[in-house]
Amino acid sequence: MVRLIDIAKKTGFSVAVVSRALQQEKDPYDRISEKSRSLIRKAALEMGYTRNLQAAFLRRGQMPAVRVLMPAWTSPEIIQMSMGISDASLKLGYPLIYHYYSRETDYISFLEQSRHEKNTGVIFYLHDRMNREELQRGCEAYLASGGKMIFMNTWSADFSGIVPDMVMLNIDEEYGGRLAAEYLKGLSCREFSIVYTSPDRYSRLRRKGFADALGGEGQPGYSFDFLRVGENYRQYEKRSRKLLNDFYEKAVKQSGKPHGIFFTSFFMANAVMNDLIRRGMEVGKQIHAVGFSSNTVSQYPFYYYAKIVIPFYEMGNTAMKKLVSILNGRQESSQMFQPFMDYDYDI
Amino acid sequence: MVRLIDIAKKTGFSVAVVSRALQQEKDPYDRISEKSRSLIRKAALEMGYTRNLQAAFLRRGQMPAVRVLMPAWTSPEIIQMSMGISDASLKLGYPLIYHYYSRETDYISFLEQSRHEKNTGVIFYLHDRMNREELQRGCEAYLASGGKMIFMNTWSADFSGIVPDMVMLNIDEEYGGRLAAEYLKGLSCREFSIVYTSPDRYSRLRRKGFADALGGEGQPGYSFDFLRVGENYRQYEKRSRKLLNDFYEKAVKQSGKPHGIFFTSFFMANAVMNDLIRRGMEVGKQIHAVGFSSNTVSQYPFYYYAKIVIPFYEMGNTAMKKLVSILNGRQESSQMFQPFMDYDYDI
Repeated sequence: MVRLIDIAKKTGFSVAVVSRALQQEKDPYDRISEKSRSLIRKAALEMGYTRNLQAAFLRRGQMPAVRVLMPAWTSPEIIQMSMGISDASLKLGYPLIYHYYSRETDYISFLEQSRHEKNTGVIFYLHDRMNREELQRGCEAYLASGGKMIFMNTWSADFSGIVPDMVMLNIDEEYGGRLAAEYLKGLSCREFSIVYTSPDRYSRLRRKGFADALGGEGQPGYSFDFLRVGENYRQYEKRSRKLLNDFYEKAVKQSGKPHGIFFTSFFMANAVMNDLIRRGMEVGKQIHAVGFSSNTVSQYPFYYYAKIVIPFYEMGNTAMKKLVSILNGRQESSQMFQPFMDYDYDI
Repeated sequence: MVRLIDIAKKTGFSVAVVSRALQQEKDPYDRISEKSRSLIRKAALEMGYTRNLQAAFLRRGQMPAVRVLMPAWTSPEIIQMSMGISDASLKLGYPLIYHYYSRETDYISFLEQSRHEKNTGVIFYLHDRMNREELQRGCEAYLASGGKMIFMNTWSADFSGIVPDMVMLNIDEEYGGRLAAEYLKGLSCREFSIVYTSPDRYSRLRRKGFADALGGEGQPGYSFDFLRVGENYRQYEKRSRKLLNDFYEKAVKQSGKPHGIFFTSFFMANAVMNDLIRRGMEVGKQIHAVGFSSNTVSQYPFYYYAKIVIPFYEMGNTAMKKLVSILNGRQESSQMFQPFMDYDYDI
């Protein structure tokens, strides 16, 4: 943690001068030249100084905590984002208040609480179940009370324009699809299939990137969707087995050329690959596969496909850093994060 | 959030009297009788009043944040515990500072920081790589500075006695093993195998519980251990395939009676079950299986075994509640959490 005395030592000014130069509001009676002020503020910025703001909060009896709203999913992306946010908060000295929401109405009470308790800022991980109008109303009231906000993952619904100049962090899903296509082309695949589990916007963007990189449309898509409401695992398995069979008969078996499979989600990828292997297909010869990964501690030790990894930790980490930067009066802009390939466990 | 005025309304005293009665240190000049003080404090306790402490922290310019130390694993237990802690912190109004550690030395700097920043309390999720002596020294210094602490998961090493009257929250691993045995006995299994992935203390306790419930030792154990350092997935798979084959030939194939398999960890459970099914074994007839679950959003849609679920969320939630209770001057004791059976996805 950078202290005033560190900045004083670095710049050669006294602690008192450094303290005054770093105050948000310029004191009309102080004698610090614009040049000195600018020099001190630049040094403080470079050294990552942030504590004055927290001390100011504490002096006013306010909690310099940042609120984070994320869905209550016990999935790898949530813990990775949480860790990214937590690591940055630890470094920057801001404690966190996590709201893991499970009901649609939770984010409204989140905004209400944030507003009344005068916290410094909030980080949103958006979800398509959110009501756009209510979210807009809540955000406007929160901003009017002086709060700052960062949004993550705004693909699932059109949340742009909810807040003017809203800082949004997103994943370049199309780029991930292109990566998958380039990987399979590099392995001399001549025919391609897309296996997806849901027609959501993520899947559409991933499929679009994949199709674009292959020079247009024409890749057959196979939808292995999720467990349905009221369906038990036995029924689900039966339905999936039928789909697996169709997929094998139509897409893979009759293919005389190396066949490339793109999984837009890790879900079902292991089941599909296991099924193909069970049917005697040679992975790495007749078929090649690549899929978006859950990027987790392995739940299942055998991976038969190269993985496209989403930098969730980085996104969370950047969200926290940008929010604190905004709290310190600086401008921040939106950012897109690119997935990357992990070939490590490929067979 | 319970306010002073709520307690005043409930008890019929003025806000000023309620405020004085709830002060940690008794003011020798106040005129509140012991009976009234006791009545007010009892009502505050029942109503879940906690804010006075936070306000007092803020008045002293101190951050009423609770620090949490957990391993940086992107696994379901970590996010479940984090959610349990976060939900309680949200309700009780304490922000959190999460330290997700990945290096062995991180918990020492954690204790150092906790001590110097005068935070209210810490929650530990222990891990066997911790050095006992260093941990003890750090804890003693932290306690001497007025901090409070709660420990979770002290099985992995003998951490008892590090702090006198340490409040420890643990999972009754033996009970989980007994649950598994009772489940398989109820399905008329007559022969049993234990599949485990590591000879750690969790696995030993689970195996002991299982063996005890079956009336003693004698169940053959098969160790499918983890990916070794320097080993790639292809080598690992080859080794595992050999183990699977041995397991099938020795334990399952020759069994004339219904065979019960107990997985002490979710790791390898799907792979083993898939292999048995591929070999034509009938799950639910010739073989029955039960295993400790990762309790997660499914990574793999088909489950062929009943699951023993560990209440990680509850443990985290209770840790935070007990810590805040201790901060409010009350006594808390250690607690054991019992795993439970989830039959839902069993086939």
